[in-house]
Amino acid sequence: MGYLHDGHLSLMRRARQAVGKEGVVVVSIFVNPLQFAPGEDFARYPRDLARDQKLCRDGGVDFIFAPGDSQMYPGGKPDYGTYVVEERLSSLLEGASRPGHFRGVTTIVAKLFNIVLPDVAVFGAKDFQQAAIIQQMVRDLNFPLKMIIAPTVRELDGLAMSSRNKYLEGELRLQAAVLWRAIQTAQTVVRESRQPVQALALRKKLRDLIEGQPAARVDYIEFFDPATLEPSAQVERGTRLAMAVFIGKTRLIDNASL
Amino acid sequence: MGYLHDGHLSLMRRARQAVGKEGVVVVSIFVNPLQFAPGEDFARYPRDLARDQKLCRDGGVDFIFAPGDSQMYPGGKPDYGTYVVEERLSSLLEGASRPGHFRGVTTIVAKLFNIVLPDVAVFGAKDFQQAAIIQQMVRDLNFPLKMIIAPTVRELDGLAMSSRNKYLEGELRLQAAVLWRAIQTAQTVVRESRQPVQALALRKKLRDLIEGQPAARVDYIEFFDPATLEPSAQVERGTRLAMAVFIGKTRLIDNASL
Repeated sequence: MGYLHDGHLSLMRRARQAVGKEGVVVVSIFVNPLQFAPGEDFARYPRDLARDQKLCRDGGVDFIFAPGDSQMYPGGKPDYGTYVVEERLSSLLEGASRPGHFRGVTTIVAKLFNIVLPDVAVFGAKDFQQAAIIQQMVRDLNFPLKMIIAPTVRELDGLAMSSRNKYLEGELRLQAAVLWRAIQTAQTVVRESRQPVQALALRKKLRDLIEGQPAARVDYIEFFDPATLEPSAQVERGTRLAMAVFIGKTRLIDNASL
Repeated sequence: MGYLHDGHLSLMRRARQAVGKEGVVVVSIFVNPLQFAPGEDFARYPRDLARDQKLCRDGGVDFIFAPGDSQMYPGGKPDYGTYVVEERLSSLLEGASRPGHFRGVTTIVAKLFNIVLPDVAVFGAKDFQQAAIIQQMVRDLNFPLKMIIAPTVRELDGLAMSSRNKYLEGELRLQAAVLWRAIQTAQTVVRESRQPVQALALRKKLRDLIEGQPAARVDYIEFFDPATLEPSAQVERGTRLAMAVFIGKTRLIDNASL
């Protein structure tokens, strides 16, 4: 979307590694209105193209594709009619909390693929479900490209890099590190247990930990099979954990393998 | 889909004309299960790949792409999850009579585009709404290709060429010519009238004409704006007419500009 951070820079490096120095690395910067519901943060999502351009230049990017809304959706709502929907992985997790979000994501990514025609596309594991859905779309619709999912990059205190971290000021920024502490707690519990752990009990433990921070409110904490995203009642090594947590008014997501 | 006829041969010629003799003409032959509803004619839709191969060879085609169902939908229903939906033009006409049909069409055409990567794609005007929907999809999803809509090819008595004409035996084949007589009647009425014609009255006239044939039953007769497919209460020059008519158990469609 833009407002680039070190997580994005790691995707650029991964892209360069994949295509070599003779290859061409393209970054798309577009805050896609279609993936925001009314009442979400589309209008105030951070944008700074001059700053992004400098970061891309320093990151060895060859091209930036930064269209305007009216280039991507000419004529707006009345004239636009085609959507890409993924129905196998999109109804759970983020899809349950944000109806229509992934339809916006798959549609814009299909458009970007058709415009840029990449041989390789790099997405971040921080948006784990998004990456899984795009991978499914690439396979189902036969997009002629290879997907690479690059690992989440974290701040020193473990907070996953996100353009939305800009919303977190002062004390809220400190409290936000609780997501990473919750992930580490879950990893420790699962790795130290000789048998599978009850999801219900582990969810309660993590919720109590997170909501011990005064500004934190859990949207969801889910344990699931990383291939199907189906919920796991029993949590064991390899089960995936994903969570969405409000820190004040800012909604953060994170995930990890346990 | 296949079971090629002179209408398809005219599409091949149009493709050759578009790409020149150095260009490559590819024909896809695939009876797409996703665009048939339960109870429709998927199982008995005519298939004869040896015959189609000969026609393609004679028609100067360079490649035939004729995948199996399991190549296009590996793993079947449980593993497949992504659909392309067009919501502006798909709910009327054929979309109203065949819910889910166009979702199957846009999905398979998106897949074929991504596999074949054509510079030019040729579709027949006989499936007018299908061509309009695919054109909308190409524009909305930025497929890097040019669409060509080639005119309907007709039998001597005016019946539009269709693989489904094979279902019509003896007397039914003769009765099927009534669709074309209805189109000609509508054209004459509109062209001879000094003012717009009431759609209700013209529809009744055509229905009576068509259902004068003992095996004919009208599914729909619609008058509409060719750009938006919105119904026209007043019919005038340039209004489009489309119809679906059962001749016995065979459902035929046809359309024309008035």
